[in-house]
Amino acid sequence: MLISKHQNIIDKAVKANHERTFYAQYPEHPKAYGEEAPPQGETTFKDLLGKPFPRLKQKIAENWHGEEVSPYTLQPLGITYPIVSTDELVKAGKRAGQRWAQLSVADRAGILTETLEKIQHHFFEIAHATMHTTGQSFMMSFQASGPHANDRALEAIAMGYQQLQHFPEHQTWEKPMGKISVKLEKTFRPIPKGLGLVIGCSTFPVWNSLPGMYADLITGNAVIVKPHPKAILPIAIVVAAIQQVLEENGQDPYTCQLAADSSSQPIAKTLAEHPDVALIDYTGGSAFGNYIESLASPRKSVFTEKAGVNSVILDSVKDIDAVMQNLAFSVSLYSGQMCTAPQNFFIPESGVDTANGRISYDEVAQKFKAAIEALVNNPKMGAGTLGAVQNEATLQRVKAAGKTGAKVLLNGAPVANEEYAGARTYSPTVLEVTANDTKVFEQELFGPVVLLVKTNSTDHSIELARGMADKHGAITCGAYTTDDAVKEKIADAMNSVFTPVSFNFTGFIWVNQHAAFSDLHVSGGNPAGNASFTNPEFIVKRFVWVGNRTYVD
Amino acid sequence: MLISKHQNIIDKAVKANHERTFYAQYPEHPKAYGEEAPPQGETTFKDLLGKPFPRLKQKIAENWHGEEVSPYTLQPLGITYPIVSTDELVKAGKRAGQRWAQLSVADRAGILTETLEKIQHHFFEIAHATMHTTGQSFMMSFQASGPHANDRALEAIAMGYQQLQHFPEHQTWEKPMGKISVKLEKTFRPIPKGLGLVIGCSTFPVWNSLPGMYADLITGNAVIVKPHPKAILPIAIVVAAIQQVLEENGQDPYTCQLAADSSSQPIAKTLAEHPDVALIDYTGGSAFGNYIESLASPRKSVFTEKAGVNSVILDSVKDIDAVMQNLAFSVSLYSGQMCTAPQNFFIPESGVDTANGRISYDEVAQKFKAAIEALVNNPKMGAGTLGAVQNEATLQRVKAAGKTGAKVLLNGAPVANEEYAGARTYSPTVLEVTANDTKVFEQELFGPVVLLVKTNSTDHSIELARGMADKHGAITCGAYTTDDAVKEKIADAMNSVFTPVSFNFTGFIWVNQHAAFSDLHVSGGNPAGNASFTNPEFIVKRFVWVGNRTYVD
Repeated sequence: MLISKHQNIIDKAVKANHERTFYAQYPEHPKAYGEEAPPQGETTFKDLLGKPFPRLKQKIAENWHGEEVSPYTLQPLGITYPIVSTDELVKAGKRAGQRWAQLSVADRAGILTETLEKIQHHFFEIAHATMHTTGQSFMMSFQASGPHANDRALEAIAMGYQQLQHFPEHQTWEKPMGKISVKLEKTFRPIPKGLGLVIGCSTFPVWNSLPGMYADLITGNAVIVKPHPKAILPIAIVVAAIQQVLEENGQDPYTCQLAADSSSQPIAKTLAEHPDVALIDYTGGSAFGNYIESLASPRKSVFTEKAGVNSVILDSVKDIDAVMQNLAFSVSLYSGQMCTAPQNFFIPESGVDTANGRISYDEVAQKFKAAIEALVNNPKMGAGTLGAVQNEATLQRVKAAGKTGAKVLLNGAPVANEEYAGARTYSPTVLEVTANDTKVFEQELFGPVVLLVKTNSTDHSIELARGMADKHGAITCGAYTTDDAVKEKIADAMNSVFTPVSFNFTGFIWVNQHAAFSDLHVSGGNPAGNASFTNPEFIVKRFVWVGNRTYVD
Repeated sequence: MLISKHQNIIDKAVKANHERTFYAQYPEHPKAYGEEAPPQGETTFKDLLGKPFPRLKQKIAENWHGEEVSPYTLQPLGITYPIVSTDELVKAGKRAGQRWAQLSVADRAGILTETLEKIQHHFFEIAHATMHTTGQSFMMSFQASGPHANDRALEAIAMGYQQLQHFPEHQTWEKPMGKISVKLEKTFRPIPKGLGLVIGCSTFPVWNSLPGMYADLITGNAVIVKPHPKAILPIAIVVAAIQQVLEENGQDPYTCQLAADSSSQPIAKTLAEHPDVALIDYTGGSAFGNYIESLASPRKSVFTEKAGVNSVILDSVKDIDAVMQNLAFSVSLYSGQMCTAPQNFFIPESGVDTANGRISYDEVAQKFKAAIEALVNNPKMGAGTLGAVQNEATLQRVKAAGKTGAKVLLNGAPVANEEYAGARTYSPTVLEVTANDTKVFEQELFGPVVLLVKTNSTDHSIELARGMADKHGAITCGAYTTDDAVKEKIADAMNSVFTPVSFNFTGFIWVNQHAAFSDLHVSGGNPAGNASFTNPEFIVKRFVWVGNRTYVD
């Protein structure tokens, strides 16, 4: 059985989930995968272009359709995917789920870990697929859709492996009653809730989908994967690899189905509202996310990651330049299209204390501007950090942000990409507003736009950041202070609205990054989303403990 | 600290929660509590009658009110309780919760275990209070509201104690990056969701309320306890004991408040809809329960136990008389007013196989009737098993059930109670229907009414029982079969609709009983309720894991 082959991987992942020290099963360095892998991956990716996607085991298609466009070349990928009716998807998923549910958790864990071992051989082609659908840089595409996503999937497998064994499979219960006793044989079964649906987004089509997919699968539920129509290829490669491993191990490949659709005929609502869909994982905008949350019922569990407005609180720092370099990178990385990217920078009007004395608000603002300019204009760093803007609507919104009337500290502009001359690029726009301009900063400005908000004091900054997170949600909060009492105050205030805080990040670590096996991604407690990668709740809501008892004469 | 005093109790309870063998911290035999306890408890109970309830630490009352009536004497208890405005309750609860949340889980576990140790000294007065509000017999009142309820509370404390320590409080994370490394200090905090509300019912005012109360408290949330206006005293004694222990240990007694109300001015909706109420536990009828479930949102977690329609499937037995005695007791116990009591008995028209050959459907029906008559007419057993009917409406509904047109196999009737001549008693009514009479058996007939449903076969019985549980919910299912394949078929079918099965119960164990530390009460997966005493989900939805990170230079 595959569980014997992979027991060591699973045991280490279970341990890592508990300990939360640094752990990675899949190295994030491309070189770890051999010299041949990068060129092979690129070739394989190029071979997929302009054709029907060939690898899925799903046989019934009503139609074939594809509408992906590379943000780097602005050319269609020309790949088509099978369009399957929602009834067929649900029917096949239910049938497959019944069989999948019969497997022991160990057998499921073994097969699912084997899928990850197979997926790693596709990391480079997935990287190119991610790059040319999302606009992420090649390195981010490789890491986020490859090893980091696989680690997040393994984290979910391990959490499920443990939770499903929380109660014993069999137990004898004997109650002493004076001279006699009553004896029962008991069994405890974790019964899968039903069919799962995972709805993906256009910016992180793999990283954000794998946790829900593997959480569904480890708990015995079949899953339908509905990607964003503009970012199908990366997850299609993953689903095909999963189906292949399922089939090789005598399982029904329909246990994990791809449900491609088109912008003109979307199927997410039909699937989500289907009475047989018991579990929904969603990543994307808040409006649709709120609709998905409204479908929750005792028979339908939903797990959402929507949008938040992330804050940075600047109180006091050791080295202002190191801080500004770090923050400039955070706002430039993937052109601000990460759900973890900071947007609102709260800075006291009295300025910021540093090891070399206080510097004024205006100096802080100028240093921030300078740090961004230095980064985006650095030919070795700029284009690679920014990547490309995923779609035209985001670009237009970002351009419009510079014309809202708010004071413009830095205007965004296209940044030349040496490899792709036509790439849709744009550097960060920085606006300055006051604490009264709530209409401007109380909304998510998706993409490369940041706001500096001048406040009365750090207490005022905390109050505004806390209020934003409470009202609009937040996935991250960056804070800089050299004062332990202020640190505790910030932690308590932001944690009270279920927002984690990253303190004093400089150097090679950024607030945007959440590491598998250690950082929880989204707390699930504020309007940015109701679920968390991967806490126990992310798992236990996907199955029901049922206990049977038999009287022993 | 109290945690040192009680560490052993908590450790044993954590172990019992996992192992699910027989375990009880609080013995169910009245004699275990000493010779003085029973008379003292009775005297203390009698001293409470006819006066304002004196023990609560809550100081602000708008009014005093009470409307409890004993189902045994039909006389008012004459006890009044403080009526507090919902705004005051929420304000005081929020303030107390902020302080309670600061305690470590170990400190909370220590204090909460101490409350249980104090409550056990009130077991006999709680027993009398339960008897004279719910109509339970004295022995059931003692066990259900005393040791069994305390064990369920300890189970919740232990599950919380473990879940809140799932992640480490502090951890160092160091990521190797070639020649350098990045180091972060991380903290993981389980942040309480907010204020809890526990809405009680009139039949099990303590047993059904304690799990939610202690689950809220162990996870750091203050709790408001809103009992049924006809069954306040039992839980008022418990709340007062909790408040006393809180105060003795320097905590705010408002961490656990009693919110009494009246039938004419109910406050459950106002409290449940209050935006500051983040957690609701509810036990009671399905109509109000469905309303409570409709309030669920990412900011409000709800936990319900509503009504179900429980089935018994009769296929084949060893000893039909032993089975019928067991089932007669199950339907008579507390006059069928337990949410776990069986209602629909599915029996094949071809009869039931026994060790002594097959007996016909009619013989089965007659044996069931005879077993009930023997029990209720046994002067040593009848009145004590039946207890009293909690309220007049239930009695009238039961009487009306005999006049629906369905064939009456046995008519219920008052049963003399030696101690209380005027007690509201009624023995079970047994009706016979066909599988087509879905209008009759597809509803909960709360109280002492049972239906025998003649089916085509055991497969047909399974199909009907499964459909009932899926559509209307079920908390228990009793099944009798000597055939392993049939047993597996019943388990699979009922488990697929998240209903546990108790097989072949005879002797001193009944399908109605769910033992703490071993049996999950309500699965949470079908319409009978969305929560389960006490699985991990019952705990983890009450707090949010939030992780902070600090960069280490």
